[in-house]
Amino acid sequence: MNVVVQNIERADPAIVTGLGECGVATVHEAQGRKGLLASCMRPIYAGAQLAASAVTISAPPGDNWMVHVAIEQVGEGDILVLAPTSPCEDGYFGDLLATSMLARGGRGLIIDAGVRDVRDLTRMQFPVWSKAIFAQGTVKETLGSVNVPVVCAGALVNPGDVIVADDDGVCVVKREEAAEVLKKAQARVANEEEKRRRLASGELGLDLYKMRERLAEKGLKYV
Amino acid sequence: MNVVVQNIERADPAIVTGLGECGVATVHEAQGRKGLLASCMRPIYAGAQLAASAVTISAPPGDNWMVHVAIEQVGEGDILVLAPTSPCEDGYFGDLLATSMLARGGRGLIIDAGVRDVRDLTRMQFPVWSKAIFAQGTVKETLGSVNVPVVCAGALVNPGDVIVADDDGVCVVKREEAAEVLKKAQARVANEEEKRRRLASGELGLDLYKMRERLAEKGLKYV
Amino acid sequence: MNVVVQNIERADPAIVTGLGECGVATVHEAQGRKGLLASCMRPIYAGAQLAASAVTISAPPGDNWMVHVAIEQVGEGDILVLAPTSPCEDGYFGDLLATSMLARGGRGLIIDAGVRDVRDLTRMQFPVWSKAIFAQGTVKETLGSVNVPVVCAGALVNPGDVIVADDDGVCVVKREEAAEVLKKAQARVANEEEKRRRLASGELGLDLYKMRERLAEKGLKYV
Amino acid sequence: MNVVVQNIERADPAIVTGLGECGVATVHEAQGRKGLLASCMRPIYAGAQLAASAVTISAPPGDNWMVHVAIEQVGEGDILVLAPTSPCEDGYFGDLLATSMLARGGRGLIIDAGVRDVRDLTRMQFPVWSKAIFAQGTVKETLGSVNVPVVCAGALVNPGDVIVADDDGVCVVKREEAAEVLKKAQARVANEEEKRRRLASGELGLDLYKMRERLAEKGLKYV
Amino acid sequence: MNVVVQNIERADPAIVTGLGECGVATVHEAQGRKGLLASCMRPIYAGAQLAASAVTISAPPGDNWMVHVAIEQVGEGDILVLAPTSPCEDGYFGDLLATSMLARGGRGLIIDAGVRDVRDLTRMQFPVWSKAIFAQGTVKETLGSVNVPVVCAGALVNPGDVIVADDDGVCVVKREEAAEVLKKAQARVANEEEKRRRLASGELGLDLYKMRERLAEKGLKYV
Amino acid sequence: MNVVVQNIERADPAIVTGLGECGVATVHEAQGRKGLLASCMRPIYAGAQLAASAVTISAPPGDNWMVHVAIEQVGEGDILVLAPTSPCEDGYFGDLLATSMLARGGRGLIIDAGVRDVRDLTRMQFPVWSKAIFAQGTVKETLGSVNVPVVCAGALVNPGDVIVADDDGVCVVKREEAAEVLKKAQARVANEEEKRRRLASGELGLDLYKMRERLAEKGLKYV
Repeated sequence: MNVVVQNIERADPAIVTGLGECGVATVHEAQGRKGLLASCMRPIYAGAQLAASAVTISAPPGDNWMVHVAIEQVGEGDILVLAPTSPCEDGYFGDLLATSMLARGGRGLIIDAGVRDVRDLTRMQFPVWSKAIFAQGTVKETLGSVNVPVVCAGALVNPGDVIVADDDGVCVVKREEAAEVLKKAQARVANEEEKRRRLASGELGLDLYKMRERLAEKGLKYV
Repeated sequence: MNVVVQNIERADPAIVTGLGECGVATVHEAQGRKGLLASCMRPIYAGAQLAASAVTISAPPGDNWMVHVAIEQVGEGDILVLAPTSPCEDGYFGDLLATSMLARGGRGLIIDAGVRDVRDLTRMQFPVWSKAIFAQGTVKETLGSVNVPVVCAGALVNPGDVIVADDDGVCVVKREEAAEVLKKAQARVANEEEKRRRLASGELGLDLYKMRERLAEKGLKYV
Repeated sequence: MNVVVQNIERADPAIVTGLGECGVATVHEAQGRKGLLASCMRPIYAGAQLAASAVTISAPPGDNWMVHVAIEQVGEGDILVLAPTSPCEDGYFGDLLATSMLARGGRGLIIDAGVRDVRDLTRMQFPVWSKAIFAQGTVKETLGSVNVPVVCAGALVNPGDVIVADDDGVCVVKREEAAEVLKKAQARVANEEEKRRRLASGELGLDLYKMRERLAEKGLKYV
Repeated sequence: MNVVVQNIERADPAIVTGLGECGVATVHEAQGRKGLLASCMRPIYAGAQLAASAVTISAPPGDNWMVHVAIEQVGEGDILVLAPTSPCEDGYFGDLLATSMLARGGRGLIIDAGVRDVRDLTRMQFPVWSKAIFAQGTVKETLGSVNVPVVCAGALVNPGDVIVADDDGVCVVKREEAAEVLKKAQARVANEEEKRRRLASGELGLDLYKMRERLAEKGLKYV
Repeated sequence: MNVVVQNIERADPAIVTGLGECGVATVHEAQGRKGLLASCMRPIYAGAQLAASAVTISAPPGDNWMVHVAIEQVGEGDILVLAPTSPCEDGYFGDLLATSMLARGGRGLIIDAGVRDVRDLTRMQFPVWSKAIFAQGTVKETLGSVNVPVVCAGALVNPGDVIVADDDGVCVVKREEAAEVLKKAQARVANEEEKRRRLASGELGLDLYKMRERLAEKGLKYV
Repeated sequence: MNVVVQNIERADPAIVTGLGECGVATVHEAQGRKGLLASCMRPIYAGAQLAASAVTISAPPGDNWMVHVAIEQVGEGDILVLAPTSPCEDGYFGDLLATSMLARGGRGLIIDAGVRDVRDLTRMQFPVWSKAIFAQGTVKETLGSVNVPVVCAGALVNPGDVIVADDDGVCVVKREEAAEVLKKAQARVANEEEKRRRLASGELGLDLYKMRERLAEKGLKYV
């Protein structure tokens, strides 16, 4: 059955913002190396970095009807996450839909399929992470669902989960774990500052992380 | 048999220019969602947008001899469209050939294979859409043909057809349909302006396109 | 057995620099069209061009321990070349390791796997050519080797070989052939200047390279 | 944290067996076109068809330690479902592990990675659906988890879910929906028998499914 | 506009049969190394070899409605050739449709997408060459066309063209060239018999084809 | 420069035969998990298993001239190993060349490209491991080399190295290490027999390999 879930819970906006500042690699490590979408998900332009709450779409291949339905569910600080029900590279989304998203306070799009009008989207600085850039149009004939759990590019995304995205790709943080992950991520950021300073001064990771003894135990030979 | 067809018909230059201004996504829609090359065809740099008349090349794998032959057939406003006779990623084309193309009035290259010297080509603002960037050199040993119909990245291209290309990819418009397609494309552009304004003001696509009733008929449930 | 080879021979720095100025496509042609890494190896940002001496790493999938070991072996003008022992896209390398590399005089990274923190690496102008950009973290549990021969993206790389890399990809030049290859590459560069001038003036490659007779012999028909 | 969940619920064995008899395509339709693993998951030999309860493994790339741990959790009628934490093609599983599985009542393996010893596995008629066949060995250095939810080849699998697999690929049925899905699947099988008979007699789908009117309404033209 | 072309011309059945006996590799060579579909098109079981007349389908992604429409157009000795309008791996076709095809005298299916029920299709010896095997179901919502020119797996196929298919893949022969190609293909078969006998007796291709002189001229050195 | 090296050293035939009996997975482990060709190299039919001495070919894309040259260098117990100088899927090899190989005592083909006539090759039981099956023909225009080191599907192969191949793929053993690797491989085979017996009796790998303590140390929790 095809449904639109209208009320979803979101994480605290301050937490979402904090996760966005940490970036994908740090957040992914902080939550125990999980939650990454597949590496085929690439940004349409370099330099975007954000976190936002997921409004999810399960859509048929080559049919973007549900995107229109989903935008009504978008609030300030949300991002669309679209997973097709079978593999598809079609361009579900372009500059008109982005215009509508921006008018609703939407922040971007994660799509395990294609996007088009990328020159306009870049000019608007509307960030998209997608599997493909493809002008192929879509129809509006078949229903899907909005705000149901989806598997997007190999990762499970529930509505209201926090999406963190930057040039390294896309990571999902479960809504209920977001506060805890932020704490760990911020600790990593603080900790890295000191490490960066010491490495920049020429100290080796071998010494900084005290690796020499364990390497010898495992049998590494210097010749 | 290997041939070079010397006289090909081209579309009216004003029509070609007009199609270039509309862009790939719009032109593709205007002609009934057909004519796109596969999504693996990517520009070597962002921001180029053009339309041009196709001078086609059917070339053996790893052999760029026919590119030299084809350039003699290039006139003002033409673009080369190269399809290898078997799948190949070699770098058939670099900055010397681009220099020669520019001297003949050529506008760019569409190649279902590889290109090289992309830093120089970018500096020259010579646009290329290709399947690969690869320095692998080619030989000049085996004949192919120039200005014969080719299938390039999954699309049939006849010599003289109009190629439209931008950051969204590449689309081919049949020469004899170009005028008609331009008319429809320009109508779409005009029509989109009004839609963009209404969407930017916060109106939903659901209302703008009057989708609510049909969604209900198909059985979409709001929960 | 896992080893770290501590003393490797490198090519003369002047030769390495010279090869870097010629670029990948020219060097690859100059050495007889060999030595290219596969076309999946792409730079994380456009415009970098360099040559450097290879410090090689053979690493298990998803384990970057050996990168730390290898950095101790890096000297001024070196580049890391990492080949996983089985196919892997994980992000073995990020901005902290790059900081350490720069402190040691290292110049960049060639990796037949993934890299992360690409926004920071771009800001630092630390060039990386990789098969993937992927935030997926790695562990430090299993040994590999440093400065052994590796096959990286389909090309054999020995420690101390010269790596040439730019927007066209990556090429390896055997250390013992570097001087000879540089001579041939520089000859090609000089030779191309004259060709470029003549092609820019509108002369055809068909005439410049005297191809017409041989094309006719092979049976090319103009119609 | 890495855990082994020791007690999982399974579906009623009669329901599992029933789903296996219906096959992947029918079960997938019966549950509303969901639950398929990606099409890269192929059987190592033709003709196997089964259903079994999932014992899930989340394993590091190139490390099969957790397979040994998981086999202790396998009971009569179970199947292992392995998802690597990052993309991997290594051969995690071979004939020794299959021998151990059979001794425990295990029925097969679903693995979003590689398998080896496929000649022996075929001889033993131990069915495996995998992304790759690859002899590349693995290590036993890093922990993973057993019987946690995993995303395998793009589909969410919970421990105890029913896996249906045949030459068409692999489908997962949620444990709590299994009885209902079986009912619908069996209805489809019964219903298809009548359709098959009528189609075999030469009746057209156009008439059998009464499509002609709706095609005309949508605008299909016969010329 | 979506159309069904009802009357198509086909090649002489004796010619079609003759081409089928020659096989793909021979026919492809006989027509000047053209007409092959991409190598991703694989048979669902080994050993099928046939030639048949193409009834073509242009279908939307994930929608198999037009297959039902096309089967009405199928006559004795025809084969369906389906090209999706955008890339798709869904299972458009299964055993019920095959039953209907057989009742109409249809011979098989060429599909640049997915197929399902392959165990049943194999048992029925209904041959299919496809890009994927995938149980993913399709809908019946959007029109396409039947018996229009399509580009299938990179090759242009016109309705009524002859499709030759075997374990090596799929080749299309233009209807109007079929007689001429058959003549050349049969000459090749006859000619190969003598070559096979001489090679089996130990004679080298170097001598049989008189290659030694030309190799020396090109500069091959024996060391 | 293009060369044919006429005298190559081979491993002792008894050692080669012994390695063939051990199979790819065992030999690969015995030599320290190295030497595998990429997993894209698949046999054209199931069940072949052999070892043979490599006669190597470096060939231009789409040009099989050097195969004819190489066959003259083939002796009893040899196998051809072909690496194209740039990526290629063309069908370099078919049943006529196999006939010639068999007449010379050749045993098979390893090719990082395409093969054709696979039905005939299967009937002749001439084993081939290839990246593709593709009827696309080749020319005889450009030189390559025979019996030079090549990188084939990511692995370095020197002439005279031992190739082991079976349903799991292809592994190369350096000629000078072959005797030592055989000894280790045979030890593994003997050792596996005892393990297989114990596992078949229901003993767990956890106990057989004494893993429980180390798992606990690493922190695995049973819940």
